[in-house]
Amino acid sequence: MANAVVLVSCPDQPGIVAAVADLVHLHGGNIVDLQQHTDRVDHTFFQRVEVELDTFDLARDEFVVALGPIARRYAMNLQVRFTDEIPRVAVLASREPHCLHDLLNRWRTGELKVDVRAVIANHPDHAEMASWYGVPYHHLPVQAGEREAQEAAVRDLLRAEGVELIVLARYMQILSAEFCAEYVGQIINIHHSFLPAFMGAKPYHQAHDRGVKIIGVTAHYATADLDDGPIIEQDVVRVSHRDDVEALRAKGRDLEVAVLARAVRAQVEHRVLVCGRRTVVFD
Amino acid sequence: MANAVVLVSCPDQPGIVAAVADLVHLHGGNIVDLQQHTDRVDHTFFQRVEVELDTFDLARDEFVVALGPIARRYAMNLQVRFTDEIPRVAVLASREPHCLHDLLNRWRTGELKVDVRAVIANHPDHAEMASWYGVPYHHLPVQAGEREAQEAAVRDLLRAEGVELIVLARYMQILSAEFCAEYVGQIINIHHSFLPAFMGAKPYHQAHDRGVKIIGVTAHYATADLDDGPIIEQDVVRVSHRDDVEALRAKGRDLEVAVLARAVRAQVEHRVLVCGRRTVVFD
Amino acid sequence: MANAVVLVSCPDQPGIVAAVADLVHLHGGNIVDLQQHTDRVDHTFFQRVEVELDTFDLARDEFVVALGPIARRYAMNLQVRFTDEIPRVAVLASREPHCLHDLLNRWRTGELKVDVRAVIANHPDHAEMASWYGVPYHHLPVQAGEREAQEAAVRDLLRAEGVELIVLARYMQILSAEFCAEYVGQIINIHHSFLPAFMGAKPYHQAHDRGVKIIGVTAHYATADLDDGPIIEQDVVRVSHRDDVEALRAKGRDLEVAVLARAVRAQVEHRVLVCGRRTVVFD
Amino acid sequence: MANAVVLVSCPDQPGIVAAVADLVHLHGGNIVDLQQHTDRVDHTFFQRVEVELDTFDLARDEFVVALGPIARRYAMNLQVRFTDEIPRVAVLASREPHCLHDLLNRWRTGELKVDVRAVIANHPDHAEMASWYGVPYHHLPVQAGEREAQEAAVRDLLRAEGVELIVLARYMQILSAEFCAEYVGQIINIHHSFLPAFMGAKPYHQAHDRGVKIIGVTAHYATADLDDGPIIEQDVVRVSHRDDVEALRAKGRDLEVAVLARAVRAQVEHRVLVCGRRTVVFD
Repeated sequence: MANAVVLVSCPDQPGIVAAVADLVHLHGGNIVDLQQHTDRVDHTFFQRVEVELDTFDLARDEFVVALGPIARRYAMNLQVRFTDEIPRVAVLASREPHCLHDLLNRWRTGELKVDVRAVIANHPDHAEMASWYGVPYHHLPVQAGEREAQEAAVRDLLRAEGVELIVLARYMQILSAEFCAEYVGQIINIHHSFLPAFMGAKPYHQAHDRGVKIIGVTAHYATADLDDGPIIEQDVVRVSHRDDVEALRAKGRDLEVAVLARAVRAQVEHRVLVCGRRTVVFD
Repeated sequence: MANAVVLVSCPDQPGIVAAVADLVHLHGGNIVDLQQHTDRVDHTFFQRVEVELDTFDLARDEFVVALGPIARRYAMNLQVRFTDEIPRVAVLASREPHCLHDLLNRWRTGELKVDVRAVIANHPDHAEMASWYGVPYHHLPVQAGEREAQEAAVRDLLRAEGVELIVLARYMQILSAEFCAEYVGQIINIHHSFLPAFMGAKPYHQAHDRGVKIIGVTAHYATADLDDGPIIEQDVVRVSHRDDVEALRAKGRDLEVAVLARAVRAQVEHRVLVCGRRTVVFD
Repeated sequence: MANAVVLVSCPDQPGIVAAVADLVHLHGGNIVDLQQHTDRVDHTFFQRVEVELDTFDLARDEFVVALGPIARRYAMNLQVRFTDEIPRVAVLASREPHCLHDLLNRWRTGELKVDVRAVIANHPDHAEMASWYGVPYHHLPVQAGEREAQEAAVRDLLRAEGVELIVLARYMQILSAEFCAEYVGQIINIHHSFLPAFMGAKPYHQAHDRGVKIIGVTAHYATADLDDGPIIEQDVVRVSHRDDVEALRAKGRDLEVAVLARAVRAQVEHRVLVCGRRTVVFD
Repeated sequence: MANAVVLVSCPDQPGIVAAVADLVHLHGGNIVDLQQHTDRVDHTFFQRVEVELDTFDLARDEFVVALGPIARRYAMNLQVRFTDEIPRVAVLASREPHCLHDLLNRWRTGELKVDVRAVIANHPDHAEMASWYGVPYHHLPVQAGEREAQEAAVRDLLRAEGVELIVLARYMQILSAEFCAEYVGQIINIHHSFLPAFMGAKPYHQAHDRGVKIIGVTAHYATADLDDGPIIEQDVVRVSHRDDVEALRAKGRDLEVAVLARAVRAQVEHRVLVCGRRTVVFD
């Protein structure tokens, strides 16, 4: 049976844990996972409470209603999710296939609990792969001077499919501020550098020129400020003088795949809360 | 001002989070950190709650008394600690100085909040170092056939100093089952292998013979079953065919120092709970 | 244009580097990569020399002939490879698809320079995947009491395809000593534990029971001594009390895929030399 | 008995390996370690050859003379070192003691084969520690507007002691371009960020503000371009939303200590060659 996940962020003050826990207990629920964090810089309270519903005497919508007065009292930013709700996802790609392929594979094996509604790419290259996975493939090329038209077509498609989560799987097109604003906290990008190092183009070339001994990649929410959105997950790999740019790219590909998958999983499991430019990612 | 830390483990059942949180809230306390874990194999509930006491209307002993009925109702294993209580610690060492030296240094710089009451060693080598740090040094050698007498002397000293935490900083003597039983969950050992690999003597030689590509070390609670106590922390480092036994030892030393310090810090911050042969270590 | 790779192991003695380098230089070759290691325990010399052939005045077979006297003088174990020779590979699998899938994908994208001649599995599950990748799929089930017959069929197939490298991609059948002896240094297995910890069955269960804080996987040559062949590559990932057996399995899968791919790549690039139970893996 | 270490960098061309190996062999030397790298971007050849001298028939100065014609023929940047030559080192520090303390400890235990001639600090804080280690401590404070005078005093002291390697152990003063030019490749700095991320002041604050999930540190050669010298070694540690700036600092301290020690050891073992802005660090 499904669990409910209650995500809370609000100004810190006493009584929040008790208020939510009491309500759950009053209605026969069992808290099976609770993580809490208080940010002492911003004085903000964050909480993720996972509740078994077997013995719960509230229906899902009743639970949301019952939480309303608590949310208002503490000025909460409140989300209530259920673990059997599978989010509708679109994966956007350009030329590089590895992140797209990995996500489709994790979806196919059931490791990633998402409903992939569409693969959208500005290149035709991955149609066959998408077809093998049984996912609709939309080739929306960017014509010279027609970037806006292409983005409009992408957004139409996302709306038509009711997409709730957009994964940029090495999608090399810049999104407009309007697009980012429509999907705040719903667009995850993988950047092939250890941000904030090597922002901008060709990070593996930059890393090679600088002679770093470790390279990294970054999964972050896309925002209007390019490469500057809140970071969800990062990872690194050791390199040496033996690694030329092509070797960095190859090592980086494995990292990109792993880090993007971890970020998407965290999002899908409702474990990420945004705190300004930072994130709280519960384990 | 100090915080209280409430550590709970008990059979899992609904209402535990609410019961503790309510009591805290009722008396004006503010929960600043709460971590909870339910072990689904053993159906055991674990919780660490850290409470600011500024506005709390219970004295420390009153808080413990007030928690009593809750503890009984849920059959809790309950500990209540306060962050300004500094534990009395003894460090036991043999020939190798690195872990001892590192602990004394972290204590001297204030990074490790402990009260080092005694350094006990079965060798005289570290007397000068202990003296420089201003810590009493007790040389209790093990005479042939007199292991029990030496252990008795060690235990007398620990009792005389009221020691609450014993750190085995590469102490190469085996402790009796009685000793381990007297200090359950209060003796931390650093083992120079990635347990359970290479149990027993000369793990770096064993690791070299086996040709592993990564070596590790393990901090664990000492129990009557040698090298088999619950693991608190582990870490690893990559090695290669270029590393002979001496190189493994050198790499291992840095790991031992780091992992033992992290384990002691977790213990001192009341972040470790034992779950059979496993541990719950909250962040 | 292809390079030659000269792999040497022999008893250590002066003059080996000079002897090989002289021969290369005499015939107009350019050494573009040279790595050397002397094992001081076994007094064994190891060397990998990569030579550009553009300006080399010996044909491939002439080079091998010319190295003959040097090899005899120093009692060398000598291999000469060329980087445009693509090894014929068979991938053996059982139920778990992830390592198989990853290898086929790396082959398809050209990242892994191998010629996958056959996928052999004792289960029918992966036929469709193999078909999509365009690789022959051989379902050779193990009937009760017929293990030997199945192995004979596998070996017939390997011989028929002229297979030079056998990758056990989570193949859960034990190979006979004869099979291992026929393909010494040519069978790479991925073991889902950080060997020598948790040898034998169900390593993720064992790791969970023991409460380790880090899990790992091991790629090694298969030998008649189960789980005891020379280790090529290992890697680890941090886990916590939050990870149940299923979570360990999921984290382990990503590791298995990465470590097996790295080991196969090292083998294919002629960077692995065996030294008793240990390996020398040049970067 | 000591070994010789021959370090070579020069434009890539055929015959270099053979030329050096021949000379060694001709005079009865045994190559016990040889590492070579060809940078294909800069077309530069790098080599480190370690030679046992037991049976070598050239004296040390004769070896250097004998290498002269080879060096000229290939336009080599050539260094010849001997493993029993212990470099004279000065450690420069400011307020933070951890890197200084660790280096002195590694020197005292014999792990780091250096001759620490002087500790120089612009604060008086570490005099007692230096005294315990038996190392001369020079307090050279920076008076307002007198930075140049202080640097002149530092350089006088370095010259008087014949210092060959300067370790900046969290020394927070900027060195002049002249100072850097006098000691090219002889000044190692530890920077408390994962360069090039968070250059400049307060990197742990910057890292916290940006919300990175991993922090790192960098050991590099000091050059006139601040924080931009060739990188010798880096390492990283995972952090989370739970880590405030003080926690980042504490995790960073352990990293700084480890990475600086590794970089100094690589330098002392003659394993680092500079390649423009990059380094070749042989294992």
